[in-house]
Amino acid sequence: MMESQRVIVVGGDAGGMAAVSQIRKRRPNAEIIAFEKGDWTSYSACGIPFVVGGEVVGGVDRLVARTPEQHRANGVDLRMHQEVVSIDTAAGTVEVRHIDSGSTSYEPFDQLLLGTGGVPIRPDVEGIDLPFISGAHTLDDATWLADLAKSGGLEHVVIVGSGYIGLEMAEAFLHRGLKPTVIDRGPHPLSILEPELGAIVARALHANGVDYRPNHEVTGFAPDMVMTRDDAVRADLVVLGIGTGPNSALAKQAGLQLGVREAIVVDDRQQTSVDGIWAAGDCAESTHLISGTNMHLALGTYANKQARVAGINIGGGDARSARVLGTAITKFCDLEIAVSGLNSKLARMAGIDVVSQTIESSTKAGYYPGSSMMTIEVLVERRSGRLVGAQIVGGSGSAKRIDTCAVAMTAGMTVDQIVDLDLAYAPPFSPVWDPVAVAAREALKLL
Amino acid sequence: MMESQRVIVVGGDAGGMAAVSQIRKRRPNAEIIAFEKGDWTSYSACGIPFVVGGEVVGGVDRLVARTPEQHRANGVDLRMHQEVVSIDTAAGTVEVRHIDSGSTSYEPFDQLLLGTGGVPIRPDVEGIDLPFISGAHTLDDATWLADLAKSGGLEHVVIVGSGYIGLEMAEAFLHRGLKPTVIDRGPHPLSILEPELGAIVARALHANGVDYRPNHEVTGFAPDMVMTRDDAVRADLVVLGIGTGPNSALAKQAGLQLGVREAIVVDDRQQTSVDGIWAAGDCAESTHLISGTNMHLALGTYANKQARVAGINIGGGDARSARVLGTAITKFCDLEIAVSGLNSKLARMAGIDVVSQTIESSTKAGYYPGSSMMTIEVLVERRSGRLVGAQIVGGSGSAKRIDTCAVAMTAGMTVDQIVDLDLAYAPPFSPVWDPVAVAAREALKLL
Repeated sequence: MMESQRVIVVGGDAGGMAAVSQIRKRRPNAEIIAFEKGDWTSYSACGIPFVVGGEVVGGVDRLVARTPEQHRANGVDLRMHQEVVSIDTAAGTVEVRHIDSGSTSYEPFDQLLLGTGGVPIRPDVEGIDLPFISGAHTLDDATWLADLAKSGGLEHVVIVGSGYIGLEMAEAFLHRGLKPTVIDRGPHPLSILEPELGAIVARALHANGVDYRPNHEVTGFAPDMVMTRDDAVRADLVVLGIGTGPNSALAKQAGLQLGVREAIVVDDRQQTSVDGIWAAGDCAESTHLISGTNMHLALGTYANKQARVAGINIGGGDARSARVLGTAITKFCDLEIAVSGLNSKLARMAGIDVVSQTIESSTKAGYYPGSSMMTIEVLVERRSGRLVGAQIVGGSGSAKRIDTCAVAMTAGMTVDQIVDLDLAYAPPFSPVWDPVAVAAREALKLL
Repeated sequence: MMESQRVIVVGGDAGGMAAVSQIRKRRPNAEIIAFEKGDWTSYSACGIPFVVGGEVVGGVDRLVARTPEQHRANGVDLRMHQEVVSIDTAAGTVEVRHIDSGSTSYEPFDQLLLGTGGVPIRPDVEGIDLPFISGAHTLDDATWLADLAKSGGLEHVVIVGSGYIGLEMAEAFLHRGLKPTVIDRGPHPLSILEPELGAIVARALHANGVDYRPNHEVTGFAPDMVMTRDDAVRADLVVLGIGTGPNSALAKQAGLQLGVREAIVVDDRQQTSVDGIWAAGDCAESTHLISGTNMHLALGTYANKQARVAGINIGGGDARSARVLGTAITKFCDLEIAVSGLNSKLARMAGIDVVSQTIESSTKAGYYPGSSMMTIEVLVERRSGRLVGAQIVGGSGSAKRIDTCAVAMTAGMTVDQIVDLDLAYAPPFSPVWDPVAVAAREALKLL
């Protein structure tokens, strides 16, 4: 029997709370205290665009996977509207600000888990704090944006950035009958995409009525206006869609080691640079499976998996986080988009010499109704023939095929092994050679 | 430069013709002669139910991937309406019957590729040769069945067997406004399915208006009637949907070694028991990746892959066929179904001690519109934790996830490795833990 312990969790979302059941299983007598400064716990930030667009009916409550009451029923001493504002690592205490009363208290811990999450990246320009500028990150953002979107009072919506959230928010406002403008610093949407695939997404933006402006850098905001280096755009509302950075201010104050983009450095057990202090989710770094480099990748899947690993270790077990591939998927209207592994630029930075092959295929047998086109680009290490990256853009049913690529990369498969894979075929699901196998077969010809 | 050779291909479909480009690439001067007894080359037999059901508009021509003219343009001396009726392996000649004239000729070969394909399995009962009984295997079958289905003259359609073709033909006749009867010897549809998943498919058959009769063995046919051990069913048309056996009569005559179900025994280079005679596709055996046993699996993907391997070897190269998992996918109305690897029975026969775990999950985030339920059963080797089989039954978007399982099995992954896989998540595509990872996580608890 392990001794009783006092475990403090900072943050009421996945990066913290997904650890609880693992801690509880291993330390039935542990005292688990969680602090959440806001009104919500364990919600799907990824679902926010679909609430704003009205596809998810019933408001933001639908995005809550576990309410405060449910967490309490699971034996967590959950304290809402309380913010951990500092950590004394030597004393093993946290300083807690009680938001409603303004008072402060100190709580001791044996082990501390930081699940402080992420924050929307904000360009450092004049006017960035104007009230018509919003992230799409919290459920309060979601409620405000959804109310605005359906109010009929909006005319000029500007989305800054073309990351996943940027594209999904553009689609959300299209669903609300608006024609949003997307201002993008880069040459094509989703900077991780290879140019050829990015061009397909850009065409879809235009075709669906988005005023997409690539190579435009925002230089400032004024009331009702977004200024770029070249021009200015009217705006009733600005949504930030550049991406998510780590919320690591608390870790920084505590003197924990920070890494890429100031994300918290953790080992593969999710422990920070200080013994007994752990971190998981959007606030922490991940290590890339192929390049071996540390990265900041704010993905909901990682928050859940890392918190599970942290929970096992806090509970006295020994779990290790797997290295990651940055697998991500999204859609813009009828176009699906997915990536996994390295792109050309990341491969170059990692010093991996690659060949790239792009093929077009169909999602189903060509004669089957509803079959649509899809494009796959694969990156293959020249020396070994090993798949190191894949990107897919295409119609319905195309993008989840990225999982086939992700598993193959995890296993270190070469393209000739991928050609041989026994993938499922029937006319409503695939051409007889699955597009992933076709891409591998065509890449083989370049080696 | 390799010497010029005379290569004879028997059969104008994938098992033979998919070898041609590989042979040609390696032996530019080879004389490639192909014999096809029927009217068609390189067609998708898998597409036939969708032509019969009217989903594929434009008739059977749509299913032809490559016409005789296209093959000839690729340098094949293709001889239609000519049937190879015997092989003299010692002399290296084939006897060819010219179907239109009735005459016979003999052709010498240096290398011979048998792509004779498969035949629908026919129960050996009285009346099986009655003209109202049809397979759904050739494009002539397809034309006849499609014409009948849309004629309005059918009332009582009976499908014997609940294999892939049986289920797809049942759906086809539903699309044509008929309520077919499916007579099944087994206790649930698709005998490879585990009982729990088979029961879901049986419920879907009933719910969509199919008169599904499990545990009914056909004992004979009379005009307008199908007799079973227990009763008799009226029928204007009977479609055989039991499965496909190898068409190996020619190989048998030639004295080639036959294996499971009389499929042609081949080595991993697709060579038969006689040097210089090769076989690929539905007429040949495959070797299972996990059990290591030889099997007969009539799947269009294997025909294409095996023919490619045979073609490389006939061309003087050295390619090996990968072992197979029996990955297959189908749908019945809104229900998708897929399998890969072993089921409980095959695992028992292979002497592999397994644990089985079945989970329910959703295809998309629960709150996302169009999310539907899916069931996955995974089979895991108890000793090693290695995934050895997976089956999926569920709504739109569920079944192609079998590929994730297939790649993981090919790589020999254990369930704890599968839990860690970096699979793609966004609300329109998956819950935050992909159902495959959930199944692995829950299976882990049983080990």
